[in-house]
Amino acid sequence: MKKIGVAILGLGVVGGGTYKILTEHRDFYKKNHGIDIAVEGVLERNKERALSLGIEESKIASNIAEICSNSEIDIVVEVIGGIEPAKTFVLAALNSGKSVVTSNKELYCKYSHELEKVAKRNGCGLYFEASCVGGVPVIRALLDNLQGNKITSLTGIINGTTNYILTKMSDGGDSYEEVLKEAQKLGYAEADPTSDVEGFDAAYKLSILSSLSFHTKVPYTEIYREGITGVDATDIRCGKMLGYVLKLLAIGKCGENGIEVRVHPAFIKASHPLASVSDSYNAVFIKGDSVDDVMLYGRGAGALPTGSAIVGDIIYCATHQGNNYSTFKNTEKADPATKFIRNFESEYYLRLFVEDRAGVLSKITSIFSKHGISVAQVNQEEAGNGLVPLIIITHTTLENSVKKAVNDINALSGGSKVLSVIRVVS
Amino acid sequence: MKKIGVAILGLGVVGGGTYKILTEHRDFYKKNHGIDIAVEGVLERNKERALSLGIEESKIASNIAEICSNSEIDIVVEVIGGIEPAKTFVLAALNSGKSVVTSNKELYCKYSHELEKVAKRNGCGLYFEASCVGGVPVIRALLDNLQGNKITSLTGIINGTTNYILTKMSDGGDSYEEVLKEAQKLGYAEADPTSDVEGFDAAYKLSILSSLSFHTKVPYTEIYREGITGVDATDIRCGKMLGYVLKLLAIGKCGENGIEVRVHPAFIKASHPLASVSDSYNAVFIKGDSVDDVMLYGRGAGALPTGSAIVGDIIYCATHQGNNYSTFKNTEKADPATKFIRNFESEYYLRLFVEDRAGVLSKITSIFSKHGISVAQVNQEEAGNGLVPLIIITHTTLENSVKKAVNDINALSGGSKVLSVIRVVS
Repeated sequence: MKKIGVAILGLGVVGGGTYKILTEHRDFYKKNHGIDIAVEGVLERNKERALSLGIEESKIASNIAEICSNSEIDIVVEVIGGIEPAKTFVLAALNSGKSVVTSNKELYCKYSHELEKVAKRNGCGLYFEASCVGGVPVIRALLDNLQGNKITSLTGIINGTTNYILTKMSDGGDSYEEVLKEAQKLGYAEADPTSDVEGFDAAYKLSILSSLSFHTKVPYTEIYREGITGVDATDIRCGKMLGYVLKLLAIGKCGENGIEVRVHPAFIKASHPLASVSDSYNAVFIKGDSVDDVMLYGRGAGALPTGSAIVGDIIYCATHQGNNYSTFKNTEKADPATKFIRNFESEYYLRLFVEDRAGVLSKITSIFSKHGISVAQVNQEEAGNGLVPLIIITHTTLENSVKKAVNDINALSGGSKVLSVIRVVS
Repeated sequence: MKKIGVAILGLGVVGGGTYKILTEHRDFYKKNHGIDIAVEGVLERNKERALSLGIEESKIASNIAEICSNSEIDIVVEVIGGIEPAKTFVLAALNSGKSVVTSNKELYCKYSHELEKVAKRNGCGLYFEASCVGGVPVIRALLDNLQGNKITSLTGIINGTTNYILTKMSDGGDSYEEVLKEAQKLGYAEADPTSDVEGFDAAYKLSILSSLSFHTKVPYTEIYREGITGVDATDIRCGKMLGYVLKLLAIGKCGENGIEVRVHPAFIKASHPLASVSDSYNAVFIKGDSVDDVMLYGRGAGALPTGSAIVGDIIYCATHQGNNYSTFKNTEKADPATKFIRNFESEYYLRLFVEDRAGVLSKITSIFSKHGISVAQVNQEEAGNGLVPLIIITHTTLENSVKKAVNDINALSGGSKVLSVIRVVS
């Protein structure tokens, strides 16, 4: 029986999950895949952690060189996260002729061009299904199943932490700060939640997914990014009454005018398949010119779901002779011919406080009209103390037109103010 | 640039869609996949149909031998459907050294053992993503992404015709016969709808999907099969009031006691992700021991979605050296060690007409109790003329116990009758 030696770099949540899956399923893989996969090495600073997982002391390496020179090891799993030392370790593994499986979205997003070049030069495989949306089979779907399509758009809920926070805010009406604290207690948010709540994590994944979808490098620096730290529970409540659910969406579109990539909170209709993707579940909704709509749904994070994606890659790598390079033009920067659309089109939700005086609504609507914005719906809540809450939903319009309208409204005398602007995705 | 010649056997809906995708995307594939895919031959009895698609007369073969002996052809796409002549043609193509891509669920379900053997012997690829659930990327997800998991269950809405009919019956309250007629007019149901409405099509697909999931041959003859021809609009309406949606489900489970495979109408809670899969959309909900829940959703049929799966396989076949054999024990019959569970467990919905007389409800419930069935809910509708409609939802119980209880109730004097029994899937 073919023997496959695996090394795991980093025994955090995902590394521990991967170790658990590999060891508990060893006989299952022998029986059903005809290969004997053994963990032959780990690299983990916290030796106690490795020992507590049941790893023999002799398998715990003190440095990457030991892993690279170990001829028992065929595949190196990198689940350290971040750029360094992960990048140095991955390059060392590839340069020593070992194939690499990684869950590192930041590393793959920023350095895929370099990693792929080195992998190719050394004839090694480089697999990254686990880098995007955990156990949801999205990378291979884009690379293999949907490769006959021109992908026109993908819309994803691809960060578990923010989806958990927004779901709880929507269910309980609590503020962002309150829910974040609870999420941190439960381990759904990190002590420093910046990467998740500011949309960096989603932007890294969107960069990878849209590069594969649109067959050209989409650097994450080209992605418009807006997190959820400014989300007000009032808007979630108001949106709900209008039949909307608030989600942190990652959106990629590719059309004749160029590519549009953005991560921001957005309202979607309660009937949209993405609206029922709750808690830490994730999903990616893809439109292709032949396949039409496809949605892939599942656990976007966690030890075992992400471990499932890693082990899927390990078995694929062990049983396929060819190596898996992505088919997009994998460069450091975007192709100069690629146009990125920044002044994108959307529908908009605006919540305002306006002066409770005859003629004010007409003033506001004339500002919209001046900027070519067509209003779809106006909802006025109960009057307050001189200032009245007003909600406006627009038809499809340009981002820049809305910005101008907001400036004009905020410049009105009398105290009218735009409190929130949220894009509506249909 | 690598040139790949394709032949299409059968220019029906899917064959026509595949031809359209290949020709319209030829430059796109050159640019993005570095291969030039050309349709070098077609086999179609209706020559006019071929010409009307714009196919040159010189590419229209008169028999399979011409396709097999054409050295320009590398990959043969079989989209004829049914067993013969599809089987003979596929074997001839494989025996002449050509790889095969097929959408034929009946053929693959019944003869995969024979086809794979011949493919292997000839060193050819054999791809069948399009055989199950159209453009939804489920075969490769099971074979590649989820291969690190023990799959414990899959639950699918995998037939577009029946899902369309049940959605329309639910929306409009019309009878099965009325909706079927309309579906036939619109082309959503065939003139002879037997294969769809009696659940054969779903059973073929379930046989393939559960064989891959459970790593053992699951012959379609082992699948309990019940179609939708007996579905009464009254039950759809009653279920709706209780928060259920009626779907034709294909269910596969694998546990310590054996494998359970069944296709039948079932109620699912309106909040279940599968409940919102409407019209001709399909979805497969998979549970794995590591990945937890995954749902794959999209168009389960149609010229372009199914063509998308076929073209995905063509490009994969053209760009990968290894060949794609399924990893389950691919035999004609089930492994004698495999146990199939027929007396399965489920919750049940029963609609009865019972005598409007004191003591009848207690008689009925004592029958349930006698067979060890625990009742979860009893709903009595408005009284009728001597007989009262009654709906009972049970807790999880055994299929055989329910059958016995139904017999006992129907044997009561006074005219009480069980009108419908529908399984409830939670």
